[in-house]
Amino acid sequence: MVYVTRRERFNAAHRLFKAEWSDEKNYEVFGKCSNPNWHGHNYELFVTVKGKVSGETGFVVNLKDLSRIIREHIISKVDHKNLNIEVDFLQDKFVSTEIIVKSIWEQLEHQVKLLGAQLHCIKLTETENNYVEYYGE
Amino acid sequence: MVYVTRRERFNAAHRLFKAEWSDEKNYEVFGKCSNPNWHGHNYELFVTVKGKVSGETGFVVNLKDLSRIIREHIISKVDHKNLNIEVDFLQDKFVSTEIIVKSIWEQLEHQVKLLGAQLHCIKLTETENNYVEYYGE
Amino acid sequence: MVYVTRRERFNAAHRLFKAEWSDEKNYEVFGKCSNPNWHGHNYELFVTVKGKVSGETGFVVNLKDLSRIIREHIISKVDHKNLNIEVDFLQDKFVSTEIIVKSIWEQLEHQVKLLGAQLHCIKLTETENNYVEYYGE
Amino acid sequence: MVYVTRRERFNAAHRLFKAEWSDEKNYEVFGKCSNPNWHGHNYELFVTVKGKVSGETGFVVNLKDLSRIIREHIISKVDHKNLNIEVDFLQDKFVSTEIIVKSIWEQLEHQVKLLGAQLHCIKLTETENNYVEYYGE
Amino acid sequence: MVYVTRRERFNAAHRLFKAEWSDEKNYEVFGKCSNPNWHGHNYELFVTVKGKVSGETGFVVNLKDLSRIIREHIISKVDHKNLNIEVDFLQDKFVSTEIIVKSIWEQLEHQVKLLGAQLHCIKLTETENNYVEYYGE
Amino acid sequence: MVYVTRRERFNAAHRLFKAEWSDEKNYEVFGKCSNPNWHGHNYELFVTVKGKVSGETGFVVNLKDLSRIIREHIISKVDHKNLNIEVDFLQDKFVSTEIIVKSIWEQLEHQVKLLGAQLHCIKLTETENNYVEYYGE
Repeated sequence: MVYVTRRERFNAAHRLFKAEWSDEKNYEVFGKCSNPNWHGHNYELFVTVKGKVSGETGFVVNLKDLSRIIREHIISKVDHKNLNIEVDFLQDKFVSTEIIVKSIWEQLEHQVKLLGAQLHCIKLTETENNYVEYYGE
Repeated sequence: MVYVTRRERFNAAHRLFKAEWSDEKNYEVFGKCSNPNWHGHNYELFVTVKGKVSGETGFVVNLKDLSRIIREHIISKVDHKNLNIEVDFLQDKFVSTEIIVKSIWEQLEHQVKLLGAQLHCIKLTETENNYVEYYGE
Repeated sequence: MVYVTRRERFNAAHRLFKAEWSDEKNYEVFGKCSNPNWHGHNYELFVTVKGKVSGETGFVVNLKDLSRIIREHIISKVDHKNLNIEVDFLQDKFVSTEIIVKSIWEQLEHQVKLLGAQLHCIKLTETENNYVEYYGE
Repeated sequence: MVYVTRRERFNAAHRLFKAEWSDEKNYEVFGKCSNPNWHGHNYELFVTVKGKVSGETGFVVNLKDLSRIIREHIISKVDHKNLNIEVDFLQDKFVSTEIIVKSIWEQLEHQVKLLGAQLHCIKLTETENNYVEYYGE
Repeated sequence: MVYVTRRERFNAAHRLFKAEWSDEKNYEVFGKCSNPNWHGHNYELFVTVKGKVSGETGFVVNLKDLSRIIREHIISKVDHKNLNIEVDFLQDKFVSTEIIVKSIWEQLEHQVKLLGAQLHCIKLTETENNYVEYYGE
Repeated sequence: MVYVTRRERFNAAHRLFKAEWSDEKNYEVFGKCSNPNWHGHNYELFVTVKGKVSGETGFVVNLKDLSRIIREHIISKVDHKNLNIEVDFLQDKFVSTEIIVKSIWEQLEHQVKLLGAQLHCIKLTETENNYVEYYGE
């Protein structure tokens, strides 16, 4: 079993807030991340897959394919977008980094299987000081 | 003459567009950066000042002071904000990185003088692939 | 189960040596790290916690709280300090990176529980070429 | 159990291709990585070992020793070399990153044991966007 | 005058040697960089241009255009190539980093002018420890 | 004229304080950097030299030589040392980053000339947020 990781990047706007809370409550819990006029990040997405090394290609997966499915199913939908408003797989979800990584996992799990490998980890870096990881369970 | 650089960071939303242009023209020139629902970045701001080394303190400027004026005059106004809407020193300006660095220069030039040094360069990194520098002229 | 990591930094002096050994033996085992006049590092501390994502906040833990306990229980005690002399939770301990991570774990394990999560990993980077991780067992 | 990681670097040329395939088939699968005139990378190798912390030295392993065996058994053989042609432990192997990490594992597993620890992970970074990890099984 | 920098990357093989020298002389001067079987690097290319900020677009140059000319005139020719053999603008040249930056300058100077700006600096990073800059004179 | 930069690193302890000042005054000006028990940093030193590209070697300077003089005249004297006490070329000097870069310039200026090039800049990074540059005047 070998683990292969591909990094892709996207720049997006978002806001942490709950509609059912007052502005004060939102600010108390989410601080400046609740700014009504949005803020944004350069997100770094690390997708790790695992599998056996193919005797034919020497690869777990061809990185061209791994990159392609990440771009098609994730990056094209989130890059230069507003995560609260414009992303189909985040509709009606709260856009904390925790919930984003779980949502990305759902989008990619089957696609990675189609490449003959298994999704192992979704890691998302929001700033140089914070990142979140999800292993599917 | 010694040059001292302090890095500070901020996360903000913005959008590149001109109100007098059609959406098509905006998209043609600014691409996905013109997204009406905004996008955002982790900006890295490098402020370089120059001056003589003080015989008293061994400093050109005390970094505590340099950091303080950057935070007070810039970071507190742009961090977790929308650069198109919420920043006093960017009002009615187009928020390209080029114009942001010039605007930051204007905010800091006098403040650095009050510390006994001279502003030398404002550098702003928008992504790991792009940055802009301004030397005041 | 989602994993959330917060990075904090500190700059400290230390020295690797055993009082019961001769200077020669100390130098033979610890090399220049045994320098009697100390040396120092920019340490990077990565604290990873795990837990369920709260339906209320969308968080495993609020990063403001995670950052606060790391600063209060660790950074305020080690930043710009001498690790051999000044740190209460390192008293009478050998200050190898291995022992520091175990000691940091002891300081934070209960504090993370009070936030409703579980401490998963303490990682400490001493230089760009070396880091140590501890998972509590 | 504490985990200690040492990074070492090497710069090498290589090429992905299978002699039994046509040039077209090689290009189709391996793309520009199959260039007959080679290309190359700055590889970053992260070797993670695990073990108990010695009561005598405060170390899992002395990093001087860990660095020495990595340099002696790996770096001296691959740095500024052609991975397809010149490396004894890669002879007759396909030089994908997946197969390189498994081959490095075989070279180091016993050497780490001689230091009194256990090899835990071989991680190899090929570009800032790709890396591969192997845990020995 | 504002300065705008774009980073692009390429991975290439090369070798430092002079045909008119013996292998011994080549090794004495160029060390392991003279390895007859080549070695390689992940090169990072920083292209800095300068100019006035356009009242129309808020840009010195549109980064899409700057990126396009770098990719068309440089990256497409050097990425996953052998710098000694395959690059038209390096034919019959010695491929030290010094000479590569001068050659890249020659390729881009006119192209940058066509974008309405002025080429200011070509910087090429060979490893994390070495880089070379050329300002055109 | 081409500019070549070599990075070298050192880890050292130091303290900012003036013997003629009270502890209170030292703390007021230098903050926690005045800690009597020292603190330390991973310093990154960037030495930039400039010169003509040799027709014989294709180099401004051979990086092996540049690295050698930096290690011999600087790194061997400061690495794993106490900058206030143990460094000949810092004797009786205040060890602010500003004064360290000027002192390193004095050590290297003539040595670089012996290599046939000219010292252009000494840059010293103290943390990821601060660095200082000196150009010799």
